[in-house]
Amino acid sequence: MKLIIAIVNDEDAIDVIDLLNEKGFRVTKLATTGGFLKSGNTTLMIGVDEDKVEIVLGIVEETCRTRHQVITNPSPLSTTTGVYVPYPVDIEVGGATIFVVDVDQFIKI
Amino acid sequence: MKLIIAIVNDEDAIDVIDLLNEKGFRVTKLATTGGFLKSGNTTLMIGVDEDKVEIVLGIVEETCRTRHQVITNPSPLSTTTGVYVPYPVDIEVGGATIFVVDVDQFIKI
Amino acid sequence: MKLIIAIVNDEDAIDVIDLLNEKGFRVTKLATTGGFLKSGNTTLMIGVDEDKVEIVLGIVEETCRTRHQVITNPSPLSTTTGVYVPYPVDIEVGGATIFVVDVDQFIKI
Ligand code: NI
Ligand code: NI
Ligand code: NI
Repeated sequence: MKLIIAIVNDEDAIDVIDLLNEKGFRVTKLATTGGFLKSGNTTLMIGVDEDKVEIVLGIVEETCRTRHQVITNPSPLSTTTGVYVPYPVDIEVGGATIFVVDVDQFIKI
Repeated sequence: MKLIIAIVNDEDAIDVIDLLNEKGFRVTKLATTGGFLKSGNTTLMIGVDEDKVEIVLGIVEETCRTRHQVITNPSPLSTTTGVYVPYPVDIEVGGATIFVVDVDQFIKI
Repeated sequence: MKLIIAIVNDEDAIDVIDLLNEKGFRVTKLATTGGFLKSGNTTLMIGVDEDKVEIVLGIVEETCRTRHQVITNPSPLSTTTGVYVPYPVDIEVGGATIFVVDVDQFIKI
């Protein structure tokens, strides 16, 4: 039995949980951090048999891969004309940190 | 030495921590998730000697077992008479997910 | 490969993350608990090679050691004269709980 601890971007959490559930994996979602400038992260814990580890890792890696996204800055920049205008910003989203740990017992009550 | 990671319902967290402390177990409480429709969960970490694992698991299972609870819905349903009335809802509370992991070192400073 | 789970005081979190980053260790910061009377804690996860465990533990222990701090109570005490005055309180800050766990795989995407 293995415990997979995956720390993923908040934006990807719902997608990755949905996909894992569809494939029959039970996911425990821990608390989410808040963040001002960038979104926070969500910690997922998944208990799986050793022969299913690669399937879970594949789903997490596919869903949470780092990619670029253009957002409109919510704090508009002041221009020299004195008018505040929103402006697009290119940010990097996604990414994940994953630990696979051997687990003695996995209990769901 | 073992690390017990128990994810329990917020409602049960205080009871289970109290009981564990009374029995001499030190519990580290991680962050709690918030939830809109249902209460969130709390993650507990307990470092124990191998021969105490079953005692801790017993306390968690006893305190956090799944049970039914009737609550009065805080968002009253609109009736055909145009009057808003609170109504009782049967929900399932409790439950826990527990991982027992082998630990090399446990340090408390 | 080892996973170090360090639960530290919020006040020490930034310092210990900075120091670990300077030494080349990547730290994943989980959610922070809030607290009313005392500050909350922050959970850090650090994946390191076995021969680096002692360096990380040394940095955490040094940065997060328990110490006393005198604060001015934000909820002033009412005196017999009917005047509310702030008063100094000696509190204990710092401290950490650390678990070192063997890890099969550590993936950063
Ligand atoms: Ni890039
Ligand atoms: Ni039931
Ligand atoms: Ni002291």
